[in-house]
Amino acid sequence: MLTVYSNQLSGNCYKVRLLLTQLGIPFKVVEVDVVKGEQRTPEYKAKNPNAKVPMVEMENGEFLPESGAILYYFAQNTPLWPLDPLSQTRVLQWMFFEQYSHEPFIAVARFWVHYLKAEEKYKEQLVEKRKGGNRALAVMDGHLRDRSYFVGERYSIADIALYAYTHVAPDGGISLEPYPAIGEWMKRVEAQPRHIPITQPC
Amino acid sequence: MLTVYSNQLSGNCYKVRLLLTQLGIPFKVVEVDVVKGEQRTPEYKAKNPNAKVPMVEMENGEFLPESGAILYYFAQNTPLWPLDPLSQTRVLQWMFFEQYSHEPFIAVARFWVHYLKAEEKYKEQLVEKRKGGNRALAVMDGHLRDRSYFVGERYSIADIALYAYTHVAPDGGISLEPYPAIGEWMKRVEAQPRHIPITQPC
Repeated sequence: MLTVYSNQLSGNCYKVRLLLTQLGIPFKVVEVDVVKGEQRTPEYKAKNPNAKVPMVEMENGEFLPESGAILYYFAQNTPLWPLDPLSQTRVLQWMFFEQYSHEPFIAVARFWVHYLKAEEKYKEQLVEKRKGGNRALAVMDGHLRDRSYFVGERYSIADIALYAYTHVAPDGGISLEPYPAIGEWMKRVEAQPRHIPITQPC
Repeated sequence: MLTVYSNQLSGNCYKVRLLLTQLGIPFKVVEVDVVKGEQRTPEYKAKNPNAKVPMVEMENGEFLPESGAILYYFAQNTPLWPLDPLSQTRVLQWMFFEQYSHEPFIAVARFWVHYLKAEEKYKEQLVEKRKGGNRALAVMDGHLRDRSYFVGERYSIADIALYAYTHVAPDGGISLEPYPAIGEWMKRVEAQPRHIPITQPC
């Protein structure tokens, strides 16, 4: 069986748990306490030198880090990965957008406020993080204004990648109210078969 | 013919110019002055709402942003994209690593020092950026210690993605001297057919 090294509050880890659940692929979870720094122990870094979760331990003993790469691997030959190269490219385009222009703002704001309970300490940096987060949400909202999903009018791993931290943006003090198209899209994502919430215990 | 909206000093844009040149795909370049903010004009944002370079304008008029997605698209059915799904996943793993754990440190340090000539202004933030950059380089160096390229012992778009900002890390005050395996790998990358330097005029 697969092992997912995961942190229960992390959106990046949730992406993997959500995909595997929706695909009906069984997995067990090893919880990694990232606030305590368990991802930086020598034992963990021997498995993933970049010291991050999520990471999947495959049945053949190989370790696979990077949520985007993990989603790509398990979505192959499923309806969550499109067949034509341009649509595949669009899926990756949104996944790279998420990791570069979205997560570093929205997830980090949430980490400081929701995990560390340190809103006061990070007050100044939060201004920039929330500005960047709103910029990313505006790009998404514009794209979704005449679309049901991010690519090709069907649910894909681009939607999983973007849903993970978007739906919990308010945890970091970033309201989703100005983005009605995102609100409608989130309902469609949540209505997918075998959807699980980020808080679902493993 | 393809049009690449590019900035001559940007490593993300260089990735695209390098790949297209190595594949023998002709393209013309529209230079975008990112220091002047030309990527944030209404005209540009109509093409790429995320206001970033590089972006490729395809022959059918579609616009393709995100360097990682562009590399994926054009590398399909070439030796720069492996055939088996696990190797493909490893290529993407390193490309996501580059965009999340490498570029935001190494490219940003270089931008402040080399583009903006503002080392003094960003003195404090540069400490963190250089620390993160060195962390990423140490991960790369460890991986390359017993490998010729990042994935499957052959040159791929993972090498292009990582070479782009790694080889100019010293521009941001991050020395490559502590990383001999990276030095050897860079020589192998530079010896690839049709290699062009980042400074090559278009």
